[in-house]
Amino acid sequence: MSDSGLQMSRRIRRTPYMDRVETAGVRGYSVVNHMLLPKAFQPTVEDDYWHLREHAQIWDVSTQRQVELHGPDAARLVQWMTPRDLSNIAIGQCCYVPLVDQHGGMINDPVLLKLAEDRFWLSIADSDVLLWANGLALGAGMDVQVSEPDVSPLAIQGPKAEDLLADIFGDAIRKIKFFRFGYVEFKGTQQVIARSGYSRQGGFEIYLQGSELGSELWDTIWDAGQKYDIRPGCPNLIERIEGGLLSYGNEMTRENNPLECGLTDYCDLDSDVDFIGKEALHRIHASGVERQMRGIRFDGGRAPVCSVPWPVLDNQGRQVGQITSGIWSPRLDCNVGLSMIETPTNTPGQPVTVVTSDGAHRPGTVCALPFD
Amino acid sequence: MSDSGLQMSRRIRRTPYMDRVETAGVRGYSVVNHMLLPKAFQPTVEDDYWHLREHAQIWDVSTQRQVELHGPDAARLVQWMTPRDLSNIAIGQCCYVPLVDQHGGMINDPVLLKLAEDRFWLSIADSDVLLWANGLALGAGMDVQVSEPDVSPLAIQGPKAEDLLADIFGDAIRKIKFFRFGYVEFKGTQQVIARSGYSRQGGFEIYLQGSELGSELWDTIWDAGQKYDIRPGCPNLIERIEGGLLSYGNEMTRENNPLECGLTDYCDLDSDVDFIGKEALHRIHASGVERQMRGIRFDGGRAPVCSVPWPVLDNQGRQVGQITSGIWSPRLDCNVGLSMIETPTNTPGQPVTVVTSDGAHRPGTVCALPFD
Repeated sequence: MSDSGLQMSRRIRRTPYMDRVETAGVRGYSVVNHMLLPKAFQPTVEDDYWHLREHAQIWDVSTQRQVELHGPDAARLVQWMTPRDLSNIAIGQCCYVPLVDQHGGMINDPVLLKLAEDRFWLSIADSDVLLWANGLALGAGMDVQVSEPDVSPLAIQGPKAEDLLADIFGDAIRKIKFFRFGYVEFKGTQQVIARSGYSRQGGFEIYLQGSELGSELWDTIWDAGQKYDIRPGCPNLIERIEGGLLSYGNEMTRENNPLECGLTDYCDLDSDVDFIGKEALHRIHASGVERQMRGIRFDGGRAPVCSVPWPVLDNQGRQVGQITSGIWSPRLDCNVGLSMIETPTNTPGQPVTVVTSDGAHRPGTVCALPFD
Repeated sequence: MSDSGLQMSRRIRRTPYMDRVETAGVRGYSVVNHMLLPKAFQPTVEDDYWHLREHAQIWDVSTQRQVELHGPDAARLVQWMTPRDLSNIAIGQCCYVPLVDQHGGMINDPVLLKLAEDRFWLSIADSDVLLWANGLALGAGMDVQVSEPDVSPLAIQGPKAEDLLADIFGDAIRKIKFFRFGYVEFKGTQQVIARSGYSRQGGFEIYLQGSELGSELWDTIWDAGQKYDIRPGCPNLIERIEGGLLSYGNEMTRENNPLECGLTDYCDLDSDVDFIGKEALHRIHASGVERQMRGIRFDGGRAPVCSVPWPVLDNQGRQVGQITSGIWSPRLDCNVGLSMIETPTNTPGQPVTVVTSDGAHRPGTVCALPFD
């Protein structure tokens, strides 16, 4: 199944940049967090890919909604929600945090922004973390406000993003380190800007607070971006897969734990902090994971669009996994995919077969992430 | 903005009926609960409307996911989640339950199915009630399992639905009363069947447990339905608006309380049961709601597609609401819409003006719900 008509309604929310996105020629959407995510602009995802690696792109990623935790128990709640030890996180720091349930299952994988000792934003993937956090707080009687502020991130990605944003906001933004944030002034408001984004090509995300400023912010960046060959874009599937960036709901669900997702570095199991799922993750860690997130390179010519998972078989023809995101990489000259692969087939170098939705059986090889 | 391409991925889940839905000629989707909802089949929504009122339709409403609460504290948890007094609900009963947060804001408006004294399904609208329920349970230390079973409702709606299903499952289903459920045998399995559905034309919903039976169930009903002029369908916007059936995310969000949504009958504020938001709803009830869910009839010829809310103005030109779902009714020979309208403009009979997205100012009248 390829593109199909998406029926619009208020329930699937528009973003503050949507008028500009439409003018820029958007050709398709996805739906994330009850909101539209623009998903196609250039003639092909390959054009988009090459451009992203060389220039600057402006992405409407408003669907990365912020769940704000504010109040005396905010720090205690956010620590309870993740296996990552947050005790040494500084104000101004961004922090990738797996959120897990009592069984160790992935609830979401947001980026945490520490705004103050008692105020945090969770910049979320596609699940209602607000309900999870508010339910936990209410059940446990914690003194914390859980809300979704009017914040809509706009990403500027690509190697020219820094020069472009320095032209607008001054050279101070050059000093912001990776996964740190600062503030810039825009039309009399202070706005959060972080060196971050859902690509490996560098760039920034502006956490615009105040939907009414959406068009002005887009236009300001768009106009200044002309000398950098700016284009409208979106998270690029080729670049994302090559970079090993996971997508919640695609590569992992509540059925998966962070250890098998390759997120062990973000799980401080030996720390003395208390978090949901600690016992479950200790048990999984002790017995060893049964599968691991891996890359797969595979041949047989350009694969079709991966809209349903593709079975991955070992050399006995037994299914050992499924590719949940896959596409042709014009740079690596093969197809690339992300797949959870069962032990012991998941060691890099193992031969596998990928059955794509066109019925083809394609020879492939397990590899480590990222691809390049 | 009308239909646009929807980018497919594993994150937006397919349903067990999807192969059949595609064969039946689906022309568009929406996304609800991270899953595809087929939204268009016949040439027009009006064809679909007239057919639904006379014959039988088969609807893939798998997006009505079930959140199962099971265990010693299941009854206590579900009662805590809703202002409706559940103390007299019987096993085998369906029950429309507003779910609210501590501020009285709507979280969801599912149908509750009481399967056993310690086991319930919440058949949900578009928000992650599983995370809400699990968060509450975990926070409060309740002994209850919260899960999403492999259950995908298939609705048979329209005046011929009963005859059709009696042909397949026997006359016992005729004895199932409105908003009650029973069980039927299908391919050696027991399946829940309820007299319910998201239309006012009568019918049943089969809560198919076991995705692998999806195609067989569809085919069985489809084949038996030929003599009843069965067609593939989906919740019909004209029929839904005329019937005053609300859609969570469209007509109401967390910003709305159930009293202003017209759901006062489902809020037992004077009962002695304990529920989240009790204090807030008492406060709102005491001070009186500031707005009310109403119907609006309006003229000016056939309105365009309502994909963004349309402002509703009083006779001084002041905005007093917005139409969140609206469409031309061929039967009532006017446009019909649902809108939260501020006091005092919300008494039936009041004149208003609707500003549709084509810029037209259309004369209208506030009315009670349902329309007919």
